[in-house]
Amino acid sequence: MWCRRSSFPLKRVVGRCLSSLGSDPICELASSTLRYGPSSTSEVGHDLAYMNAKRILLFVDPHVATMDPFDTVVSSIEQHAPTGHVLDIYDKIRVEPNNDSFKHAINFMAEQTNNHGSYDVVIALGGGSTIDTAKAANLYTCYPPDDFYDYVNPPLGKGLPVPGPITPLIAIPTTSGTGSETTGVAIFDDVPTKSKTGIAHRRLKPTLGIVDQDNMKSMPSSVAKYSGIDVLCHALESYTAIPYTARPSGRPASPILRPAYQGSNPISDIWSLHALRECSQYLPRIVSDPADDVEARAKMCLAASTAGMGFGNAGVHLCHGMSYAVASQVKQYWVDDYPKLNSDEENGHGLVPHGLSVVINAPSVFRFTGNLDKSDPLHKFSADRHVECATILANARLQRRGNTGQEIPSQRAMRDQPGDALANELLELMHELDIPIGIRKLGYSEADVEELAKGTLPQHRVTKLSPRQPVDLEQLTSLFKEALDM
Amino acid sequence: MWCRRSSFPLKRVVGRCLSSLGSDPICELASSTLRYGPSSTSEVGHDLAYMNAKRILLFVDPHVATMDPFDTVVSSIEQHAPTGHVLDIYDKIRVEPNNDSFKHAINFMAEQTNNHGSYDVVIALGGGSTIDTAKAANLYTCYPPDDFYDYVNPPLGKGLPVPGPITPLIAIPTTSGTGSETTGVAIFDDVPTKSKTGIAHRRLKPTLGIVDQDNMKSMPSSVAKYSGIDVLCHALESYTAIPYTARPSGRPASPILRPAYQGSNPISDIWSLHALRECSQYLPRIVSDPADDVEARAKMCLAASTAGMGFGNAGVHLCHGMSYAVASQVKQYWVDDYPKLNSDEENGHGLVPHGLSVVINAPSVFRFTGNLDKSDPLHKFSADRHVECATILANARLQRRGNTGQEIPSQRAMRDQPGDALANELLELMHELDIPIGIRKLGYSEADVEELAKGTLPQHRVTKLSPRQPVDLEQLTSLFKEALDM
Repeated sequence: MWCRRSSFPLKRVVGRCLSSLGSDPICELASSTLRYGPSSTSEVGHDLAYMNAKRILLFVDPHVATMDPFDTVVSSIEQHAPTGHVLDIYDKIRVEPNNDSFKHAINFMAEQTNNHGSYDVVIALGGGSTIDTAKAANLYTCYPPDDFYDYVNPPLGKGLPVPGPITPLIAIPTTSGTGSETTGVAIFDDVPTKSKTGIAHRRLKPTLGIVDQDNMKSMPSSVAKYSGIDVLCHALESYTAIPYTARPSGRPASPILRPAYQGSNPISDIWSLHALRECSQYLPRIVSDPADDVEARAKMCLAASTAGMGFGNAGVHLCHGMSYAVASQVKQYWVDDYPKLNSDEENGHGLVPHGLSVVINAPSVFRFTGNLDKSDPLHKFSADRHVECATILANARLQRRGNTGQEIPSQRAMRDQPGDALANELLELMHELDIPIGIRKLGYSEADVEELAKGTLPQHRVTKLSPRQPVDLEQLTSLFKEALDM
Repeated sequence: MWCRRSSFPLKRVVGRCLSSLGSDPICELASSTLRYGPSSTSEVGHDLAYMNAKRILLFVDPHVATMDPFDTVVSSIEQHAPTGHVLDIYDKIRVEPNNDSFKHAINFMAEQTNNHGSYDVVIALGGGSTIDTAKAANLYTCYPPDDFYDYVNPPLGKGLPVPGPITPLIAIPTTSGTGSETTGVAIFDDVPTKSKTGIAHRRLKPTLGIVDQDNMKSMPSSVAKYSGIDVLCHALESYTAIPYTARPSGRPASPILRPAYQGSNPISDIWSLHALRECSQYLPRIVSDPADDVEARAKMCLAASTAGMGFGNAGVHLCHGMSYAVASQVKQYWVDDYPKLNSDEENGHGLVPHGLSVVINAPSVFRFTGNLDKSDPLHKFSADRHVECATILANARLQRRGNTGQEIPSQRAMRDQPGDALANELLELMHELDIPIGIRKLGYSEADVEELAKGTLPQHRVTKLSPRQPVDLEQLTSLFKEALDM
């Protein structure tokens, strides 16, 4: 008998000892479909036609809305979407979105939906801020929560799972940075607590990411620098994150409860290492010449996406965890020739580009996470990974500079102090790219350290992914103290 | 004004020169969500509950249906799917499926659907044959074509695209070979033309692949060998396939028409290289001890999936293209201790395991594809890739065998004849794994060469991905002639 039909309870055909529901570690990789290549943006109209999208909502960065990529998207829709279809455009995107800007976008989408019917497809054209805003508006419109914080990550929010599929989202990044086109994460500044938090669920992942290096042509050098160094930190942090096999919480009761930030694992490692290798080679080049070094631009925008797939399935840890306090507590700091951004005007305080607020903690962090005590069960893992990362950066440095000056430290020297080896390579790169070293340069002093550490405590969703534990107030204080000048 | 609402034709806000719809090369990567880890199979019931699956169809290999993985799946469904749900089981899977076995499965699923309503989820538990059968049955039930060949790849079929989403498929492989859990491809033997062909569309891709090394525990050594060598060939062929930038057909009119087999590209390269590195290291180990070398099993089953993502988005070329004639025209050949398969009983002729029919052509193929004339525009690409592959295999060989015997050829020697370098490394590995060298060992002689070449011509979907062109009757004849003894 080769087929059979039955209702539960099912009569078992074979009765042998069952594999028990084990406690073995399991990881899960989900990623958006990626389309990659110059001018791939011009294909989006075809996708909408194929998806039979009659009502389309386009989120666009207001700056991008005055530029070629926006024209390309609108023109492609005009050419390929059938007559009579509706395109709504929302461009009130806040750089570094917050509760208010999220709510504004949600209200717009929800109101349009209530008055005119659901959208078939949402498009986001811009950097991470635009894509994240689109994700939030889409989720809150499809499944309105009782309270804004219902979906927000604990401890600020309840972290409720997304109840079902949301409207398909096509993400078209215009910076090579966040990797938001591949992740199920939407980050925002929580104004009441002056901290950064987010919403994270696999169902927020875009259906399609269109990664088109032509869209990054007009990126200023400083944006190329700080978005690119963010990509490098995504790669380094996800590759050195606590292994998924060592998470103290162990295997969840159901696969649905497995966090996207599950620790480093054999699949995310593939992506993270790819991004790390590409960044170490092409980041200095794209900073030198973002407009005309076509190869560097092509490589960096793919690296941003692969790093996104890496950290989107593994997580980041302390550099990002500490960055949120650094960015939100800054008093007076602006980056020369960084585009005029909204938050400094509104709040009267400075603005630290996200990538800078991350990498500025990195030397201090990797000295901590790389130099584990030999009795620590993760000592070998951590040493191996930090040395591997340092070696990749060192080899790229040597290739770039030739034999002018420093050589690569020996593997033995690196293994003696793996954290220092990685921190030193990062410092070399930061010097080369003219990135400020030490948070004192951002205006912080010893008097601010405690507040910065306290501001980092709520980030335990990422700080618990550090391969070295515990990360408590005392430890964070010491990390920020070291980060003052290094 | 930050938002606006309009119907087509849209009044343009900004009017500048548009990016033209370029001819730049674009690639697209799509992959199934992968869950990876020992005993991950036991989680499938949770997924069904989460998907609210009330009607479930399980395709299972009849041999697997008597073993632990089947018990695990059924038990997980019983434990987690709500009472009253229906599970149908279909186990009439043919190893190396053909028109008849596909049609049988289609009829079963269609009949059940017509009589009792649509399925919410389809599960496939088995090797590539089972997963491919489930894909076909699912597609033909969801969108019944006028003719069986409507969806089949040209030239045999019309290659019509899949019109819409199909029922979600969860694929749980029990061999580490085909990578079908990640691809949108379903392969079958076309009985009328005695050739192998398939159906290929991104929408056939499983929603979730559960890659659980525990399911491969009972794989006999010969199955580990030939499914593993297939993985290695997936990696080698997809990495050496014609670059997506050099496909003569150029950029398609619409992204929907972009083939999944689009040539090697920066994203598939990441997967293919990962699989190649893992195979070169762990294939010999899993062949030695498939049951107890847990690490090798874990690595090889992930490599099968990553190779699937590589070739599923890049394609394979001549080794696979030629394999179909080798497998279907064989007269008398059986592999000792290979499981008794259906086709030899039915057809009275031998059965060449798929991986053997592929790798046996590989030395001849890579000599051809790796030794390009210096005037060929792909000369550098091809030389670089063949040398890189040979180096990876050679380093693994050296690491495995220590300093006993041969050393690695110098990079200069390899670059002189890159095709020979790769062919020689493959021959070393085939010797080590006790794999027959040369199709004469399968019973072929000079008299069969022309028929084999003719039988390969219809495989132009893959033969056109060879980095060396043209691949015509004359060339194929010469390749098979060389494959007789090498």
